[in-house]
This record gives sequence, C-alpha cells and structure tokens, in this order.
Amino acid sequence: MGLRGCFQVFCPGSYPVLVVPLFEQITMNDYSERSLVLHRSLHGKLGVYSKVPLLSRDDLSLAYTPGVARPCEVIAADPDAARELTIKRNSVAVVTDGSAVLGLGNIGPLAALPVMEGKAVLFKEFADIDAWPICLATQDADEIVATVRNIAPGFGGINLEDIGAPQCFEVEARLQDLGIPVFHDDQHGTAIVLLAALLNAARVVGRPFEQLRVVVNGAGAAGIAIARLLAGVGQEGSGFRPVADVIMCDSRGIIHADRSDLNLVKQEVLGFTNRGNVKGALGAALEGADVFVGVSRGNLLRAEDIETMASDPIVLALANPIPEIMPDEALRGGAAVVGTGRSDFPNQVNNVLVFPGIFRGALDVQARSITEPMKAAAAIALAGVVDEPSADRILPEVLDRRVTPAVANAVARAAEQAPV
Amino acid sequence: MGLRGCFQVFCPGSYPVLVVPLFEQITMNDYSERSLVLHRSLHGKLGVYSKVPLLSRDDLSLAYTPGVARPCEVIAADPDAARELTIKRNSVAVVTDGSAVLGLGNIGPLAALPVMEGKAVLFKEFADIDAWPICLATQDADEIVATVRNIAPGFGGINLEDIGAPQCFEVEARLQDLGIPVFHDDQHGTAIVLLAALLNAARVVGRPFEQLRVVVNGAGAAGIAIARLLAGVGQEGSGFRPVADVIMCDSRGIIHADRSDLNLVKQEVLGFTNRGNVKGALGAALEGADVFVGVSRGNLLRAEDIETMASDPIVLALANPIPEIMPDEALRGGAAVVGTGRSDFPNQVNNVLVFPGIFRGALDVQARSITEPMKAAAAIALAGVVDEPSADRILPEVLDRRVTPAVANAVARAAEQAPV
Repeated sequence: MGLRGCFQVFCPGSYPVLVVPLFEQITMNDYSERSLVLHRSLHGKLGVYSKVPLLSRDDLSLAYTPGVARPCEVIAADPDAARELTIKRNSVAVVTDGSAVLGLGNIGPLAALPVMEGKAVLFKEFADIDAWPICLATQDADEIVATVRNIAPGFGGINLEDIGAPQCFEVEARLQDLGIPVFHDDQHGTAIVLLAALLNAARVVGRPFEQLRVVVNGAGAAGIAIARLLAGVGQEGSGFRPVADVIMCDSRGIIHADRSDLNLVKQEVLGFTNRGNVKGALGAALEGADVFVGVSRGNLLRAEDIETMASDPIVLALANPIPEIMPDEALRGGAAVVGTGRSDFPNQVNNVLVFPGIFRGALDVQARSITEPMKAAAAIALAGVVDEPSADRILPEVLDRRVTPAVANAVARAAEQAPV
Repeated sequence: MGLRGCFQVFCPGSYPVLVVPLFEQITMNDYSERSLVLHRSLHGKLGVYSKVPLLSRDDLSLAYTPGVARPCEVIAADPDAARELTIKRNSVAVVTDGSAVLGLGNIGPLAALPVMEGKAVLFKEFADIDAWPICLATQDADEIVATVRNIAPGFGGINLEDIGAPQCFEVEARLQDLGIPVFHDDQHGTAIVLLAALLNAARVVGRPFEQLRVVVNGAGAAGIAIARLLAGVGQEGSGFRPVADVIMCDSRGIIHADRSDLNLVKQEVLGFTNRGNVKGALGAALEGADVFVGVSRGNLLRAEDIETMASDPIVLALANPIPEIMPDEALRGGAAVVGTGRSDFPNQVNNVLVFPGIFRGALDVQARSITEPMKAAAAIALAGVVDEPSADRILPEVLDRRVTPAVANAVARAAEQAPV
C-alpha cells in the first residue's frame, strides 16, 4: 500500500513542476481501469519545460526581448540556422485526425488525444525527441494536407498517426515534398518491424529470405505498407533483396488482375504482388506459402489452414487484441515461428521498436524524408539487435534500450548514403 | 570565469535530458550577441517531458496500448472529460504567421520561432502553462483561421502572437467561437498593462480615472486595443468606468468622422473615440489632454509638446527601442508620470505582467473566451499589486511573483461572474 514512487521534477528556473504519485493500492489487473486512474491523476501525460532560467531581468532580456531579435535576424538571413538555434532540430508533431484510433475506430480528434500523448511519451523516453500532439478537427484529406503544411515550419518532423485508409496514403504522399520527414507510423512502423521479424524468422527456419512466398491478409494501411516493403518497392540500388512473391488478400479474397472491384490503391498493389495472378480465397493463397502475415481481424484461421502451407511455415498474426490465429493453434498446425501484436506471447510486433529510432536518425542528419532504403536499413538493424534468433525470439523486447540507437544509426547512415 | 550554472534535468523514466551551460566568460554587454550565444548552446529553449515513467511493460500498457483505449472511450462518450484526462487542461498554442515580429517586421514564421519559444518559456515560468509554438507557413487570414480551427482540439487556449494589423483583428474576431480562449497578446496584453499603468498614474496625479482625456498615437494592433479598453467598449454591466474621452491619431493625424481615408477598422474606432470630432494633427489632440499614449515610433515629441497638455500630464511612450519621447525630455516638459516599454527606465509597460495570468485564470475555470470584463479585471488586479503607487512605480516589476496569481484570480472570478 501507499506510494510506489513519487517523482519530483525540477526544471531550471521553473516551479517544481510535477509530482507523479503511482499508488500501489491500484491493484486492479485490468489495464483499462488502472489506465483511467493514472490518466485522472496526471491530467495529461506530457508537459513543457524551459531550458532557460528566468531569475533576473538579464535572463529575460536574453531569452526574450530585446536579445531574442538577434537569433531571429540570423534565421531570417539563413533559414538553415533554425536547426541550430531553435526547437526545430528536435521537435516532431504527432498528427491525427482521429479517424482510425487503435481498435476503437473513428472516435475523433479529441478522444484520440490520450493515444497521441502516449506516442509523444514514447518519443521522449526512447529517443529524447520533443513531440507534441496535434489533433485535427477535420478528416478531409485536402484540409489535413493544408493544415500540416501550415504548421510545419516549427517542426523537424511529422508523425502521422491513426489516420484511416485510404486517405492516409494520399495525405502522406502529398506531404513528401515538405522538406522534413513525414511518416505514417501505422503503415511503415508496422511494416518495418514486420520485416525485421521476418528476417530473423527466416534465419530460424533456415530458409533464404529472398525465396519466401508471403501471404498478407488485410489491405489496409499496414497491410499495403508491409507488402510494398517485403516486395522491395523503391529499393532499386539499395542492395535490399525482396521476398520471392507476395500475395495480398482483402475481405473478398486474393487481389488479382481480373478483379473489377479494386480501388486505386489496390490496383497499384497489383504492380508488385501476385506474379502468377493466383485467384481464389485466402485458403487458395495459403496453399504452399511460407509466410502468413495477418493485419485483418481475429479468429480467421485454424490449425488445418496452417497445415496447407509449406513446411515449417512462419505465422505473424497481428490482429489485436485477438490474432488471426492464436499461437497454440498455429503451432498445432505446424507453424515453426509465431508472432503476434500482443505482449503476453513471444515475438511481439510493436511499432515502438522502430519509430523512435527512425525519427532520431532522421533528425540527427536532417533528412528531408524517410526513404525506402532507410526503412529497410531500420529493419535490418532491428533484426540485428537479436543476437541469436530463435522461434521464441525473433524480435528484441520493447524495453531493450539497445534498439533505438541501433535503428537510429542505421537510418542516419542510409540517409547519408542516398540523400534526397 | 567558467561555468556560472550547470543545470541537469532528470525527468522520471527519461534520459537525463539537459545540461544548460551559462558561461560567465560571455561578458558582452550587448544582449544581441549574448542571446545568440545562448541560443546556439541550447538548440531550442523548450523541451517536452513525460510525466509517466516507462520502466516496465506494465507502465507501457497503462500509458499506451492497450490501457490507453479506456480514457479514449471515456472522452468519446463525454468530450468534457478531456479536461480531466489530457493535456488540454493546461496547454496553449502560441500561434504566429511571422508577419509583425518585434520591431523586425515581416520576417516569416521560421525566423519568428525564437520569439515564440521565448513566449512559451514565459508561460511556463510565470504560470506553469504548457505552451508550444505553432509557426504558420501562411499569412492569409482565411488560412490562418482554418488552420487554428483545425489544430484547436488538443489545446486549452490559443495565444495569437506577432500577427500584423489589420488581419490580426479579423483573425481574432473570427476565432472567438472556438470554445477556448483566443487572445491576441500584442493587442490586449499591451492594452491591459497600459490600463493598469494608467489606473495607478491617475492615483499618483490625484485625478479621477474617469475624467481623463487620453490621446493614443498609433492605430495599429496595440493602439486600437488600448483605445477600446480605455473607452470601455464591451464593458456594459461590468461596473468598469471608462475614461472621459480618447482621441486616436494615426500617421495622418487625428482620426475624425470627416476623413475619407479610413479603413474599416479605423471607421469602427470613430464609434468610441473623439466625441467632439476634433480635427487636426497630433499636436491639436495633445492640447489640454491629460494623457499621451504612444504606440507608434520613436522621437516624435519634444518637451514643448508636453507643455501644451493639461497640468501634471501622464506620458506613456511605448515605442521600442526608442520611445516617442525620452523620459527626461518628457519630465522637462512637465510630465508628472512617465512610462515606457523599456526595462532601463521606471514604469516598464511589459506584456509579461499580464498574459500568463490571463491564461492561467482562464484555463483554471475553463473559460470559453477572454471577455472585456476579464481584461478590465486583470488590469485592476495588476494595478493593485503596487501597494503605494508613485511617479516612479505605477507597475510591478516584471519578475514580481505576486503578479500572475493576482491577475489569474481576478480573471477567473470575472469569468465565473459572467460566463460566456
């Protein structure tokens, strides 16, 4: 009982800004209610601190008027100086329209704020990045693009978060000319961690990565990004060797060239998937495949479905909270390696393994965007943190503090090798 | 020589985030160069801290997924709960378009960033408010309004900063229905401090405030806000008694009803100024006036001009860095009380005396806007912090820590008495 920990933060020149009491008497096992109590006690998980003490008129004259006019003039003459003189160097906007929040769906921008705050906390804790939530009162792609353009000058990067498909693709694509990285984590963070998991899983089953035949079930934001990354789209000249083939399925089955119901995004998918123009339902795709990747919905597959795959198949079933197939069921069907999105099973595919390092590396070298080679480099570096991959360990633990520096270094190197 | 102070900030669960070295060897007297060195060493004057430690998977599950879904659901069902569960309770966006920055003019949003950071530092230091700079890549009023609307959900207030006249009036007016306070500090912060100064100056010269005849020279953002506040616009029923008359001058002289060159904003000024429809140049306005307020440009007046005013006149010459008339010159002309915008003379009219308390009070009671009675209440409270006003002391010192709580309490009371 009583206080488990009581943290007091002093920032120079500030009031003592914070006491965080974490009560041991909160013994509920349910994360939901405990989280609600935590949020009630904190009134927001983030705060701003000042790096400058204001103890005298002199301090005020340096941090604010009249002294501050000088750095302003320097930046007006040379915009690049902003990276040296301002928060732009290390700040990221976590931007959402609240249209696709966790498994909750379209709950709107205000209700999405706790998630965006959590994301900003992870940015700080894992990569010492100053991220601030920007929750947008619009779900119109044109307005999202215009708003992000308008607020961009003060930020060094934009993390798009929980924006639904298909507008997330358009929004991200149209913002790539901003001059700072614009990265939709739900797409690429997931894809990069998935690629890392698959690189190590291939080692575990002793099969060359570039010979893998992969089925991706689910053609939303994450599914399409996974298919693109595994298929090596945009990797020309980077040395990255993609898998042998990807077959993508949506709720109506395999995406193939003869379907007339494909939207523009899915038509583009045809350009890098399903080389044999295989047709049929998910079951037809699975037959003889080496890898199943699920980014769809829970309880889709049974052990018998896994049995139709190639020998020692790899199953990465990421639907949350209920995976497409539970790990014990997949193992019963012969799966050699199983991963999920959950923390209570081995091999958790969790974006936090990637996005802090991606932005840390990009900010460190002032990259203007996150390129495909930078994504592959991040995945390879993440996979490399696991010393000896095994069936129960194809990814590092989410709290492994080696991860972010490894990813950041690889991303920074890749950015410098092929600057945009 | 050597380090004057070396501050290290530990935030719970964070890396040690900061060392601020302030070198005593920086002995330059010039604020400009010292400020540049300070900005170079800090790379931004602000940072974000996390209130939640992330030391275990359990911590992660409470601050982020899966636990965070619960506060999201609570807010989705009851938007007001966001004030309890998120940063919205205490966060302010400091929004600029970089069009009218200090005395530097239209230097654009990026070059304005050091000023916005400084403003956020003041918000934190004086009122423990979490403010974040938003520098807009547009100077179009429609776009500014649309962008602020779009980013508003995550903020508890909007501080408009260094947006030029006349678009600042339109932008602020159109945003008053946002449901959170939207306050253009260059207008109202200045006006409120000026009113406080004048309340005490009137006591010093022994003249009833409501009998004062005031000349305001300069019809920009600050000048018009000052005229409105002194003239009691929007104060109906609040008990605030305005001055007897305000005559406003622009660069072409007195603003009167027979001028054909007045823009819409200046035409509106006629509704609450110049009751006698006095015409002529600034000199004609000054004759017999009790108060000169300058928000224009330096070196406009001489002692002889002050001599034409009523006896014991009050001179508040706020042009920066050179006032409309230097204090010694004004005193030579018979001024009884002189104030400026400068820190090296007595009676500095400085917005920092007001805006932290305005927002602190408004956030504390979740006011939906900053009303005219709240502004008057802030001024009266600020004036009241000076125990015994004298010619050299009509305002508190900027670092007087009694100021912000006094202003905040008065603003909160005024908001509760007349909720919007």
